Amino acid sequence: MKKLINHVDDVLAESLDGFAAAHGDIVSLGEERLFVRRRTTQPGKVALISGGGSGHEPLHAGFVGRGMLDAACPGHVFTSPTPNQMLAAAEAVETGAGVLFIVKNYSGDMMNFQLAADMLDRDHATVIVNDDVAVENSTYTTGRRGVAGTLIVEKIVGAAAERGDNLAALKTLGETVNKATASMGVALTSCTVPAAGQPTFQLGEDEMEMGVGIHGEPGRRRVKLTGADDIAAELTGAILKDLSPRRGQEVILLVNGFGGTPVLELYVMVHAVRKLLADAGVNVMRYLTGAYVTSLDMAGCSVTVTAVDGNTLTLWDAPVHTAALRWGM
Amino acid sequence: MKKLINHVDDVLAESLDGFAAAHGDIVSLGEERLFVRRRTTQPGKVALISGGGSGHEPLHAGFVGRGMLDAACPGHVFTSPTPNQMLAAAEAVETGAGVLFIVKNYSGDMMNFQLAADMLDRDHATVIVNDDVAVENSTYTTGRRGVAGTLIVEKIVGAAAERGDNLAALKTLGETVNKATASMGVALTSCTVPAAGQPTFQLGEDEMEMGVGIHGEPGRRRVKLTGADDIAAELTGAILKDLSPRRGQEVILLVNGFGGTPVLELYVMVHAVRKLLADAGVNVMRYLTGAYVTSLDMAGCSVTVTAVDGNTLTLWDAPVHTAALRWGM
Repeated sequence: MKKLINHVDDVLAESLDGFAAAHGDIVSLGEERLFVRRRTTQPGKVALISGGGSGHEPLHAGFVGRGMLDAACPGHVFTSPTPNQMLAAAEAVETGAGVLFIVKNYSGDMMNFQLAADMLDRDHATVIVNDDVAVENSTYTTGRRGVAGTLIVEKIVGAAAERGDNLAALKTLGETVNKATASMGVALTSCTVPAAGQPTFQLGEDEMEMGVGIHGEPGRRRVKLTGADDIAAELTGAILKDLSPRRGQEVILLVNGFGGTPVLELYVMVHAVRKLLADAGVNVMRYLTGAYVTSLDMAGCSVTVTAVDGNTLTLWDAPVHTAALRWGM
Repeated sequence: MKKLINHVDDVLAESLDGFAAAHGDIVSLGEERLFVRRRTTQPGKVALISGGGSGHEPLHAGFVGRGMLDAACPGHVFTSPTPNQMLAAAEAVETGAGVLFIVKNYSGDMMNFQLAADMLDRDHATVIVNDDVAVENSTYTTGRRGVAGTLIVEKIVGAAAERGDNLAALKTLGETVNKATASMGVALTSCTVPAAGQPTFQLGEDEMEMGVGIHGEPGRRRVKLTGADDIAAELTGAILKDLSPRRGQEVILLVNGFGGTPVLELYVMVHAVRKLLADAGVNVMRYLTGAYVTSLDMAGCSVTVTAVDGNTLTLWDAPVHTAALRWGM
């Protein structure tokens, strides 16, 4: 295992300390590093809280800040944060309008966020993200997994919270955006969890895992490596089958690197996917390209498409100021 | 070789097409993809043009836009662009105030930018970036290599061009920022050039290349893999030896991923480097962390420190709107 780390047990703490120092104008760390919070909260705004296992950076801490999340709870690598973390985060950033939890659909996260919600003595609601169309049920889930589409839900709901939407409206909006979002990924290599010290799974030199999960979970099938156009066709085909967009549908396209994928290749995928979407009569209004929801050092990418309307597109375009997404301010 | 590509010969063209589509609000492609240019130029502003081999994305095309470059010329992977490209770019974006070429110190780039400058019938000047303190002379250079510090030169000079500084002033500023900038990198794995189909160099499972270049050129020495703190100490030590900052010196710190490095690890490095800088009495005013000057899929990182004053820090903070760096608008 080759990693820029000191001791395996200290990776998360040191990384969080570096993150908090580098982005001290936006975030601060909660006590005992239980959560990353927005430096300043806004009274009367619904507090948005997400979280999950680490190893997917910049998700979620990189999306804490004005126009997006109020706090993120980082678990150990690929491990759910504890209810204690979510409760501490909620009590720190809730300002009277309630808490919306945004949770990726993994059994550990679902259970722990539920426990935290049960203990929380404030108004709260939960949006579950399950955008991955690769498989029903999986290693760590009942039902579909939540993957890169999570950031789109967090951005759009974050903007609505910022403009003053109430808790019920935000929950409805989050569920609407989740339903309008579909993703699927492919791995060319495995990731390596620091504490494990070896690759999570084995892939032959000429193989790829089609439909891989963001923890290296199995996807639909293991197949021979093909070209970018063929890969794009399978990912985009599955997404379009799920979303069934009408001709002329406006969408956001996210081509997401898993951590070990060169930017040069991500734009090759953008080129391939946009041709397919154009052929399907789908109109890409906004692009986002980069490593946003990663699997440590895994090579590969995912494609996410979100169908938008005037309201959700305006919310996507609204100003945001986080470590990983920033525009309009 | 596992890459998200179609045919090796089409990688650059397809990636540029994807890039131009994704960032059509900021850039457009020149004819025959000779250059990436800012969609709108500003009459009377000095035109800033950079470029170099591809494989370092988002450098340089990702830094084209308001507040930074006017055009970037992409060569094939790790290969200089041609004088023809630079000349075409200059003629497309020059608006009467002259052209400043920003060139990384590699023999091929130096020769081709010089040939273009000789042919150009407009006022022009050149700033050479050679921030890599790892080695004097190298595989492709006479003198020090230009690496990640290039983006800091491009950002600061870009902001000064935007406020209306003239060609001579921008050349002086660029040279000043270059002198105030020092970088050094480490590789944990090799990169793989698509056309080569195999890793550029071989590293043992317990080895790293200390002082590596951004094309996988040899650095100072090949050593046993150590922890992040030890790596940070060697990189930061070499940088501080070169810059000799006074106590209280204000700096920008860039921790740059080479393309295959998880964000989690980059922030571990931020944490390690900032402690060392604090111990040296150096005051980090701004942080930038991410994969900005890459070597395809190489795992590893570089550290860059730029000493700033009130003027250069203000220029760093000035609004910028490019594909890869965006703030203030």
